[in-house]
Amino acid sequence: MIGVIALNPALDVTHHVDNVDWAGVNRPVSVRAVPGGKGLNVARTLDALGADVVLMGLAGGSTGAAVRSGLQAAGVTAVFTQIAADTRRTFVVVDTSRARVASFYEPGAPVTAEEFGRFVASYRETLPGCAAVVLSGSLPPGLPAGTYADLTAVAAGAGVPVILDTSGEALVRGAAAGPAIIKPNLAELATATGRDLRWADPRDQQAVLAAAAELRERGAQAVVVSLGERGLLAVTPEGAWHATPEPVPGNPTGAGDAAVAGLAHGLTLGTSWPERLRHAAALGSATAAAATAGEFGPADYRLALENMRVRQLDHV
Amino acid sequence: MIGVIALNPALDVTHHVDNVDWAGVNRPVSVRAVPGGKGLNVARTLDALGADVVLMGLAGGSTGAAVRSGLQAAGVTAVFTQIAADTRRTFVVVDTSRARVASFYEPGAPVTAEEFGRFVASYRETLPGCAAVVLSGSLPPGLPAGTYADLTAVAAGAGVPVILDTSGEALVRGAAAGPAIIKPNLAELATATGRDLRWADPRDQQAVLAAAAELRERGAQAVVVSLGERGLLAVTPEGAWHATPEPVPGNPTGAGDAAVAGLAHGLTLGTSWPERLRHAAALGSATAAAATAGEFGPADYRLALENMRVRQLDHV
Repeated sequence: MIGVIALNPALDVTHHVDNVDWAGVNRPVSVRAVPGGKGLNVARTLDALGADVVLMGLAGGSTGAAVRSGLQAAGVTAVFTQIAADTRRTFVVVDTSRARVASFYEPGAPVTAEEFGRFVASYRETLPGCAAVVLSGSLPPGLPAGTYADLTAVAAGAGVPVILDTSGEALVRGAAAGPAIIKPNLAELATATGRDLRWADPRDQQAVLAAAAELRERGAQAVVVSLGERGLLAVTPEGAWHATPEPVPGNPTGAGDAAVAGLAHGLTLGTSWPERLRHAAALGSATAAAATAGEFGPADYRLALENMRVRQLDHV
Repeated sequence: MIGVIALNPALDVTHHVDNVDWAGVNRPVSVRAVPGGKGLNVARTLDALGADVVLMGLAGGSTGAAVRSGLQAAGVTAVFTQIAADTRRTFVVVDTSRARVASFYEPGAPVTAEEFGRFVASYRETLPGCAAVVLSGSLPPGLPAGTYADLTAVAAGAGVPVILDTSGEALVRGAAAGPAIIKPNLAELATATGRDLRWADPRDQQAVLAAAAELRERGAQAVVVSLGERGLLAVTPEGAWHATPEPVPGNPTGAGDAAVAGLAHGLTLGTSWPERLRHAAALGSATAAAATAGEFGPADYRLALENMRVRQLDHV
């Protein structure tokens, strides 16, 4: 079983609107409300891969109830700790005529120390049944930046490897707690290491490898950097690799979460790093090609796997 | 007690955003989720006027639960019939930097015949305690255009006068069932009578009076036309009047609902038509001056009452 932690889940409400009037009244042609947030995308992808998943997190209020019932309808096992505040919404307006997407992210439900204490108790109970744990997404208001570091340490105490996907101070502190894998994107890696990073020509690659190596020195066992349509770059104890997909048109939302699911799946299966990276990058690619975050077509996944180039990198 | 019927309530979610990026990610500076819809605005205004109000309607799902708890928090007595579908949301994005407001109206929860039957039973039970009933807003999917006409007839059978505020076929059929007052705006009056109406110069007034008189001939006892910042025009068995407020800057959303509340309040108090119209128009004006639909400042209300001009109109 893979545990996926969603401390700041959301109810994703998407309106498709023809020719949005940004100064008037609009009547959406379609409305969709589904559980969202990075952890939930990871759980859905793992579920689609046939992995046994348990989602753990915090949920409250009527939006929390909608998230719970949406996950139940989707067949995802979820153990949420009840909180007093309302779970946040994410509102997405898709302007179908102009092919533009606007998103509005509510900040998240504040969590009290008592509520988080109840969550940690439930987390400790569930850990012994987990082959790996994914810690994914932003922290809700009220929780300190060291929260993921603490949860990583608790998992280490239970002998469970952690995949961490977050940003800022939570990533810096979490990396120091020794997770098996961290997955920053290029901007998150730049912020975490205080370096100016880009990915324009082959010389940039060395700087990215050096930044990833720095986070390994600080505690992370492996660092996988997501590069959008340029795929994934991994710096691991066994070496460094770059998985490059064929370019596909699509929506990058959720592609990083799919890659995290692929890394967690590969970790629990014990696949080699080049193979693990190939699958993770292909899942990202197939998810970008799909219409909805957290979903992918099996045919797209197979095609992305076939067309993936995985190259070992020289790295000191 | 005044009964207010909300067959298609909403959870109004408002995001205030600085400089909206309509093709990117936005983080609202404030988020507000409150019960909304025309009936709920009417009930809140009546409550603020000190009237005894019971809100009756249909609600379902997690958004229905949020509407119920929001009304409870606001101290509004509500008797909702539970339905299977989710109560709709209304999303409002206020671009604070550009002073622009975009609204996104979900269509509403479909209602089954069985669910509506349970609502009507509850309506029949509550009617004997009501001095008046307000039927307000659009009909949810699943209910026929004759719904308000049927509810008006049921109220007539119990000796309870009805104030009807709706549009299109529901208004045309409802007017024929003999409500005490209907309150179309100019566009709704034009659609209901198949006339081309405007309000630009004094000659237009006669055409509007004639259209209102036509709806009286078809069954409505009195017709009050809301003219936005030009106030209210009433054609009644006692004569015709026009109440003109001082112009105030503001947001017209909810001003019509406040006027309906004022008309219902005046009807139950038995005030004369000129006085009833003065209060209804002043409530509309004060609500337009307020930041939130369904709310108004007592000082704005007093000022609008003082500055209101009510003029009797010659009308055949």
